[in-house]
Amino acid sequence: MERQNIDIQYTWDLSPIYAHHQDFYKDLDKAKELLTSLLQQKDLFLKDVNQFLKFHQEETMLSRYIQKLHCFAHLHCDVEPNNQEYQTMYAAILSFYDQVSSSLDFYTVMMIENSEKVTQYLQDEQLSDYRYTIQEILRQKKHVLSQELETLVSKTSTIADISSQVFDALRLDYDPVHIDGQEKTLNSATLTEFLKNKNPEVRKEAYHNFFKEYKKFENVYAATLSGVMKKDAFYADVKKFDGPLEASLFDDNVPTSLFFKILDKANNQYRPLFHRYNALKKKVLKLETMYNYDLNIPLVQYKTKKYTIDECFDIILDVVKIFGEDYVNIIKKAKEERWIDYYPHSGKRIGAYSSGCYDTNPYILMNFIGDYNSLSTMIHELGHSAHTYLSCHNQSPVNCDYRIFVAEVASTVNETLLINYMLEHASSPQEKAYFLYELLENCVGLIFRQPMYADFEHILHTWAKEGKPMSSQMITDLYDKKNAEYYGPEITMDEYVGYSCYYIPHFYYNYYVYKYTLGMTVALAIVSRLLNGDEKQKEAYLRFLKSGGSKDPVDLLKDALVNPLEDQLYDDAFHYFETILNEFENIVLDDSSSTLS
Amino acid sequence: MERQNIDIQYTWDLSPIYAHHQDFYKDLDKAKELLTSLLQQKDLFLKDVNQFLKFHQEETMLSRYIQKLHCFAHLHCDVEPNNQEYQTMYAAILSFYDQVSSSLDFYTVMMIENSEKVTQYLQDEQLSDYRYTIQEILRQKKHVLSQELETLVSKTSTIADISSQVFDALRLDYDPVHIDGQEKTLNSATLTEFLKNKNPEVRKEAYHNFFKEYKKFENVYAATLSGVMKKDAFYADVKKFDGPLEASLFDDNVPTSLFFKILDKANNQYRPLFHRYNALKKKVLKLETMYNYDLNIPLVQYKTKKYTIDECFDIILDVVKIFGEDYVNIIKKAKEERWIDYYPHSGKRIGAYSSGCYDTNPYILMNFIGDYNSLSTMIHELGHSAHTYLSCHNQSPVNCDYRIFVAEVASTVNETLLINYMLEHASSPQEKAYFLYELLENCVGLIFRQPMYADFEHILHTWAKEGKPMSSQMITDLYDKKNAEYYGPEITMDEYVGYSCYYIPHFYYNYYVYKYTLGMTVALAIVSRLLNGDEKQKEAYLRFLKSGGSKDPVDLLKDALVNPLEDQLYDDAFHYFETILNEFENIVLDDSSSTLS
Repeated sequence: MERQNIDIQYTWDLSPIYAHHQDFYKDLDKAKELLTSLLQQKDLFLKDVNQFLKFHQEETMLSRYIQKLHCFAHLHCDVEPNNQEYQTMYAAILSFYDQVSSSLDFYTVMMIENSEKVTQYLQDEQLSDYRYTIQEILRQKKHVLSQELETLVSKTSTIADISSQVFDALRLDYDPVHIDGQEKTLNSATLTEFLKNKNPEVRKEAYHNFFKEYKKFENVYAATLSGVMKKDAFYADVKKFDGPLEASLFDDNVPTSLFFKILDKANNQYRPLFHRYNALKKKVLKLETMYNYDLNIPLVQYKTKKYTIDECFDIILDVVKIFGEDYVNIIKKAKEERWIDYYPHSGKRIGAYSSGCYDTNPYILMNFIGDYNSLSTMIHELGHSAHTYLSCHNQSPVNCDYRIFVAEVASTVNETLLINYMLEHASSPQEKAYFLYELLENCVGLIFRQPMYADFEHILHTWAKEGKPMSSQMITDLYDKKNAEYYGPEITMDEYVGYSCYYIPHFYYNYYVYKYTLGMTVALAIVSRLLNGDEKQKEAYLRFLKSGGSKDPVDLLKDALVNPLEDQLYDDAFHYFETILNEFENIVLDDSSSTLS
Repeated sequence: MERQNIDIQYTWDLSPIYAHHQDFYKDLDKAKELLTSLLQQKDLFLKDVNQFLKFHQEETMLSRYIQKLHCFAHLHCDVEPNNQEYQTMYAAILSFYDQVSSSLDFYTVMMIENSEKVTQYLQDEQLSDYRYTIQEILRQKKHVLSQELETLVSKTSTIADISSQVFDALRLDYDPVHIDGQEKTLNSATLTEFLKNKNPEVRKEAYHNFFKEYKKFENVYAATLSGVMKKDAFYADVKKFDGPLEASLFDDNVPTSLFFKILDKANNQYRPLFHRYNALKKKVLKLETMYNYDLNIPLVQYKTKKYTIDECFDIILDVVKIFGEDYVNIIKKAKEERWIDYYPHSGKRIGAYSSGCYDTNPYILMNFIGDYNSLSTMIHELGHSAHTYLSCHNQSPVNCDYRIFVAEVASTVNETLLINYMLEHASSPQEKAYFLYELLENCVGLIFRQPMYADFEHILHTWAKEGKPMSSQMITDLYDKKNAEYYGPEITMDEYVGYSCYYIPHFYYNYYVYKYTLGMTVALAIVSRLLNGDEKQKEAYLRFLKSGGSKDPVDLLKDALVNPLEDQLYDDAFHYFETILNEFENIVLDDSSSTLS
């Protein structure tokens, strides 16, 4: 499919950002003027409160221009990668951004050096919008070095990225898999499919042919994975953090106890629930030996219907009416104002995202194919977009950006509400079992698997911090052990399981994965209360969506009535999982039609 | 072959280093005591000349222990890698060395901060042995940063090595090559062999199957190659050098004009000579189209005899008698005192090297198989060992270590003398043609190919210095272009030639390759004068071998009557190549038996 053959109503309308290409360059010129002006204020902006305010107002304007320019260029490039005009715009804004970052590098150091004066200025009401973000800068005091050292540290960025670059560049070929005498191409997409195959030989061949390639390149992967761990340890050390964990959590101002609480809940206290689920799978599938790669065999045979885009909107509008008219109107706007680029076509970026800023609509890129997954992705991305929309319409431009730490809440709440809606509207026990299974698998991925990843990652980070040399043997032995504990006694580990860690990009993201668990537990708590008609929760949640990035993430969540520092949140989430599991167990153990055979 | 089956007289005798294993640990303890003592002197060693002398004497002793311990452990590990006792010793000395490096990092900074005082101390006769090495430290003044910055720079070492680590870890598999209907395994060793095959299809298939794998992983290689260039640019920048070239040449105190002179001589002035040689190959081989991968087809069909180790020594002793009795006695000692580990066996390190220090014999590891190449390797490594022996017996322990920049002279002189000896003793025009061809191919590799590599490498370094992003397309296009210019109009470039840069480890060695050219031109000049009975040259050369690392490399070479800053040296070397080429041309154009057919 080519882009020009797609009906224009199913493509996004980026003209509200810039109607003409020259408008992009006009804004880029304005941004350049602002940078010049800011650089001229280097020795002045701390002189008095008015100069201080002027500097920050101009800096905010500069950020808005950069975000708007970046948004326009990257959205266009993602659907028309071969259009050189957009590529030129994209290169221009990236290069300007680099210039801004390096030429304004005096800012943080000077703010910290003058923190007393800055704190005084902040009492001025004119600066009220800036209080939170500036206090966030001052909070870095212990970790900002002298200008000379900071410059040196920032120069290391050119050599620090090699591990991730190599990981991204290393694309493997896999031997084909034989199904009914035919050779089938193996890749990431078909692996998932082949692991659902009824024939154990197919599953085994797919798993082996896939991961034996990671074993073949194990020393390369060990170098890049240990490389990225050494990088994080290096930055934590030079920036005077106790370790990589502390450095990573510092940005979100989250205590390490939160991280360890999540690991303890998932990997110790509630892990037996996951083992029970695995045992149920083994029982339902009547497998004598169940390998780790057998866990993907669908427990429920049910074919969901196909959805048109209009049907998706009908369902989504029905689901989100729980949030009230304002939220519903945002979803309607998304459709009417063409925020969404729906269909896949040649050259278009794969996957899905929501992207926007204070001065643009919150656009969505999708690769819609009309299955349940497309519907679920759509409500997920609309969750992000509604969050962005509400933040930008209720916060000043300084405070509207919310952090990754809380970003997955709005999307996961929507996804979970959707599954519950499907459960409620299910017309047969089998349909119900299908959506319960979807929900269970979703939960397993986010509340059980990610904490295992986090535990593994944390050990690697600790090795790096201690300067321990990391061989592939050490890494794969550890991953093998962690998986055996994770899957539990009923599941047999395949010989390649240790090498499967080399396939996972998230280990390159520096303590990212635990945020998925947090997002899901928060979402489960919120959804279960919303479905119980809890009006206070609804108001609190909408308040959270409108708060953007105006507070510390933990405080934002507390405002949403979910306290990530307390046990209750996690206990509720895992108990919710248990309830679903009970319900599912009752159906599948009753209903023989739900099994493979 | 297992090690225990090899006659002991053909293995090295490491017992003169340590007769018993406990002696290793006794010395390690002494080294640790010395480190403790040195650390206690941190605030004292600059106080007066006596404390200064004491500190340096102890530091020298510590270095001697480290070198001796390291030598013992690594030699044992290289022939018995599975012996855990030696692996433990090796790990112990490496870890102690790291500890020494980091805990003595105050030394350079304090020396520079007190350079006036240090210069005064150096006038004391008791410090005469230390003058050169300490002046070398003071010479770094412009490039040594504050202690705080130096510590940060040294910490970057953990993240700076990833590119090289990945390059080393990335081992490719190649599709087999078909020869006379049989599948033959392709690897680095067989590639060289297959490229000599008479059948053009075999050569093409071998070349394509080999380098198509580098194309497949081009983005990984582009990341590691650009990564190592960025690393060099980073260190050059933070250490205040004009660029990576200046940073690299600084250590040897060599002007950049020398580097550019070598490139100009080889890549511009004398390149037509290489093109003439290629044209001769094409003519002799009667090829209509000659591809770059056809240049390895042997021009002369001649099978050299097999040599026993005793026969090798007979020839070598005959060759080196030109240097006089002292040198001859060193070679005899090497045999009698069992400095050499000759034969390949399972687990033994591949290749060959000479390794030793002030307190050990200069040992040699080989993988002797009795062909001409084994003989040539033996005289090459004995060249290094004689150089080490003479340096250690004529210099103080502080000044005996010679630098890489001059290290290849002694070995290449020997190798070239050997070829000349073979030429002199050749019993047929074909044998003569064979050794002339050997000499020409040797010369091409060192005086033509390496300067092309150096030119390519320098452009990548310049891109990194300018912060230019490097795609694989840019890198391979450049290498393709450089090769086309290099091989000249008679040779046709294969489509994969651009990717062959990814196979070469030397591009990871930071301006290393031009040193090969220098070593060869110096050797050619010295050998041609020696063969003309130039007694002054002989004495100067022996003086050079005895001088170790007591002077700047360029001064050492000047003492050996070869001035690398002047045109004459290079002009002589390339004219020597021309003379050999003329002689060879006369034989092969006369003698039809020397061609393939």
